[in-house]
Amino acid sequence: MKVAIVYKYGSIGLAREVASFLEDNGVYTDLYHLPVRDLSDYDFIISIGGDGTILQILQSLENPPPIFGINKGRIGILTHAEPDNFRDGLRRILDGDMKVESFMRLDCIINSERTHTALNEIAVLSSEPARLIGMRVLVDGVEIEDLRADGMLFSTPIGSTAYALSTGGPIVDPYLFSILITPIAPFKLGWKPWIVKRDSRISVELYPDRNSLIIADGQKRVEVSPDAKIEIVESEHPARFFEIKNRLKRIAEKLKYIR
Amino acid sequence: MKVAIVYKYGSIGLAREVASFLEDNGVYTDLYHLPVRDLSDYDFIISIGGDGTILQILQSLENPPPIFGINKGRIGILTHAEPDNFRDGLRRILDGDMKVESFMRLDCIINSERTHTALNEIAVLSSEPARLIGMRVLVDGVEIEDLRADGMLFSTPIGSTAYALSTGGPIVDPYLFSILITPIAPFKLGWKPWIVKRDSRISVELYPDRNSLIIADGQKRVEVSPDAKIEIVESEHPARFFEIKNRLKRIAEKLKYIR
Amino acid sequence: MKVAIVYKYGSIGLAREVASFLEDNGVYTDLYHLPVRDLSDYDFIISIGGDGTILQILQSLENPPPIFGINKGRIGILTHAEPDNFRDGLRRILDGDMKVESFMRLDCIINSERTHTALNEIAVLSSEPARLIGMRVLVDGVEIEDLRADGMLFSTPIGSTAYALSTGGPIVDPYLFSILITPIAPFKLGWKPWIVKRDSRISVELYPDRNSLIIADGQKRVEVSPDAKIEIVESEHPARFFEIKNRLKRIAEKLKYIR
Amino acid sequence: MKVAIVYKYGSIGLAREVASFLEDNGVYTDLYHLPVRDLSDYDFIISIGGDGTILQILQSLENPPPIFGINKGRIGILTHAEPDNFRDGLRRILDGDMKVESFMRLDCIINSERTHTALNEIAVLSSEPARLIGMRVLVDGVEIEDLRADGMLFSTPIGSTAYALSTGGPIVDPYLFSILITPIAPFKLGWKPWIVKRDSRISVELYPDRNSLIIADGQKRVEVSPDAKIEIVESEHPARFFEIKNRLKRIAEKLKYIR
Repeated sequence: MKVAIVYKYGSIGLAREVASFLEDNGVYTDLYHLPVRDLSDYDFIISIGGDGTILQILQSLENPPPIFGINKGRIGILTHAEPDNFRDGLRRILDGDMKVESFMRLDCIINSERTHTALNEIAVLSSEPARLIGMRVLVDGVEIEDLRADGMLFSTPIGSTAYALSTGGPIVDPYLFSILITPIAPFKLGWKPWIVKRDSRISVELYPDRNSLIIADGQKRVEVSPDAKIEIVESEHPARFFEIKNRLKRIAEKLKYIR
Repeated sequence: MKVAIVYKYGSIGLAREVASFLEDNGVYTDLYHLPVRDLSDYDFIISIGGDGTILQILQSLENPPPIFGINKGRIGILTHAEPDNFRDGLRRILDGDMKVESFMRLDCIINSERTHTALNEIAVLSSEPARLIGMRVLVDGVEIEDLRADGMLFSTPIGSTAYALSTGGPIVDPYLFSILITPIAPFKLGWKPWIVKRDSRISVELYPDRNSLIIADGQKRVEVSPDAKIEIVESEHPARFFEIKNRLKRIAEKLKYIR
Repeated sequence: MKVAIVYKYGSIGLAREVASFLEDNGVYTDLYHLPVRDLSDYDFIISIGGDGTILQILQSLENPPPIFGINKGRIGILTHAEPDNFRDGLRRILDGDMKVESFMRLDCIINSERTHTALNEIAVLSSEPARLIGMRVLVDGVEIEDLRADGMLFSTPIGSTAYALSTGGPIVDPYLFSILITPIAPFKLGWKPWIVKRDSRISVELYPDRNSLIIADGQKRVEVSPDAKIEIVESEHPARFFEIKNRLKRIAEKLKYIR
Repeated sequence: MKVAIVYKYGSIGLAREVASFLEDNGVYTDLYHLPVRDLSDYDFIISIGGDGTILQILQSLENPPPIFGINKGRIGILTHAEPDNFRDGLRRILDGDMKVESFMRLDCIINSERTHTALNEIAVLSSEPARLIGMRVLVDGVEIEDLRADGMLFSTPIGSTAYALSTGGPIVDPYLFSILITPIAPFKLGWKPWIVKRDSRISVELYPDRNSLIIADGQKRVEVSPDAKIEIVESEHPARFFEIKNRLKRIAEKLKYIR
């Protein structure tokens, strides 16, 4: 068994502690500081940091192994343990006693080429701050929105507590696989968030006057010209996480910190 | 074959036209003015009116036969034909050429007894206008909200364009079976709409100081005391409608009328 | 000097304590349990209760004397002292050392007759729960809104933290005298709160199909037919309160309790 | 009398038409293409373009002469005439028959130096797209908000239909001089727009981790470090416009185009 331990700035001490615990249990480990190369060939990955660390790790994973998160961040909706109690969880993994859950990711396809994969959201933003970007949004060919805004978010259920939380969108049950569509600061009176089926094919048609910036999970940025063909669909490669017993409860509790 | 034709006030002429068309095609028909008794033993039902007429018909149907709606209302998200073109649709039904779609309904269970079934939403409201009602909302035992408000809505996807549209809730793809939870005029700064899986067991615990009024689809009203045990779950008996080719498109177009 | 002490249910003990303090200082006092008759002829009024108690007292005051509030409620945005420290404030009043501030109230005029006066808001609601009421709202003859909703609120700045807080309205600086207009659960996608000048003449034209319930400060209720002429204007008789040193700070702090 | 005519790209023909009309009436005119130098020494300015053209002209005016706008834009809340009917308005100005109205502007003061003046709004944004900026907002020393967001807007009443319209803010009567404070995409559940008195001294304290971009009216951009002292106050130099008969009506009508 081969495990990658990825830690964010300032967590090398804890990373070594985790490594030594695993090696005492006969597991081969490698330590990585962020950012990392593709770690798809490990049996699982331990993330030491916050939700942001997990998002960064996933950016480089085409086909992600299961992730176990030790929380060194502020909120930690996705993490499994705190620095002082990680041993229990890891022991259960080694004992084969912890299930793995898959969560949908979204692909952004620009001019027929996959450019981004996101666990939380694909953001289509204006390339200039404080300048509106205009766009039409179509779901399976049906136009559901046409507006000018700071941008538009296409979020997974997991992502409903990320950037989408800043918009008028709902909190989505993490197991209700679906795509949430919410504008950011729409310059329009009559609009609504939309939530559609996971197998929807979403396309975005930009107004001809401005470039957009497409960002996956606040990480990977690509600037595209207004004539680009932009599509958002469910990724074939979900993220995989070791189980968290009651994710809804976790979310309800963590939300109290951002009241 | 036996068909019930239900018409709202002012539509008797059209109802007779529909009946005569069906009888010319060898179908036995009965005409009913709203409100109606249980029509579960008909092969299908024709509603002549608006979406409200269909909601009223469904109120009396434990186990609904398929419904075909002829629009005499304002918006008509659920209807299949206009008064001048109903023959095409009916002919396709008689030819066995029109599929039937099922849409989830919600049951409200008060003190272990089913009291309401709704296609759009179960509303838990204050029994006195302009007086707040306090409540906790739990999903599978997890408290997701605790607030005072004018009321709380538990909506189906179909219902996301009904009362829930008046709240901060999203438009939900009609085929993304789920339960949407949105407060009405919450006296609280930090809240969010929630959307959870269709098989969630939702319970509502009222603050001890005020009766609530529970209303299904704006139709059936029951006043309950604060110590009542209130639960909302998916109904075993979905509503059934003849197919509409592109429901998302229908919704996107109809929303323009309520901008 | 003649002072009325008005107390809510359960506060008779504190009321007697306050009375005995005042009488020891040579002030004549009368004790009243809510609800009260017009107390306009007193030099000032002491309210023992929450903000709701003050609202109830004001309902019966055509031309209100200054009010001093001792907080026995939950939030207490309008109150001046807690049960254990009321003596300081009262001594300052007796010493002529506490300024009086005036805050605008709103009159509702139905068919040219003043029917309600409100410190917080005039609510124009549907007379039936879960049934929309339609209305047009005009400001100095200009139609600014036309929609169907659960109701519409016309609030003072003080009222922006009352019922209006449950809608999409802003918190208004208590000294920015103005009228805030916000719908309750509007069945319409494109709408906005409005805030207009204090001397605006607002009129409401109901759709012909339903009675409305007009409520001042959650207290006084009148049902009116759809053909009534409804106007909302600033009252000639403001409410008067002894000063609170930093009302903005008070509001910012109290809002934390309703997060 | 000396008049500056400023036109946006594509409007040189109309600009010449306006100049020739004025010269026939004995007025000296200069033509300018955007952007312009300070035109404070003209008797008045004619803007040929949309609201954006007027905003650009104002950016270079310390002490603005009255502006008359001829609409070549989309919405035109601030303009006085259309290309085919400008003569009437100009004749009334020349006859001394058209009043001038003043509208408040906002100054942004960074480290005690005035850096921006805005007719619509001062925007304090994250310097990086899709990265939150954290800040505390104080009004006269009282903290009213503390959150992380895409940014924060400080708007005039005129600006309530500009960028602030994209946020949860209200439409403010253009004559209700005040400052509207609204976050852009706040990553926080419990927040509210605020509207405070025109003479409020607002300060913004940034979290230490990120630069902000401060933008006036979508035009002038300055990047500031997190330790900068940022203040927003009413400008001593209002904008001046020739009168528009019923500005509330104009706004209500123009809003229909952005439904």
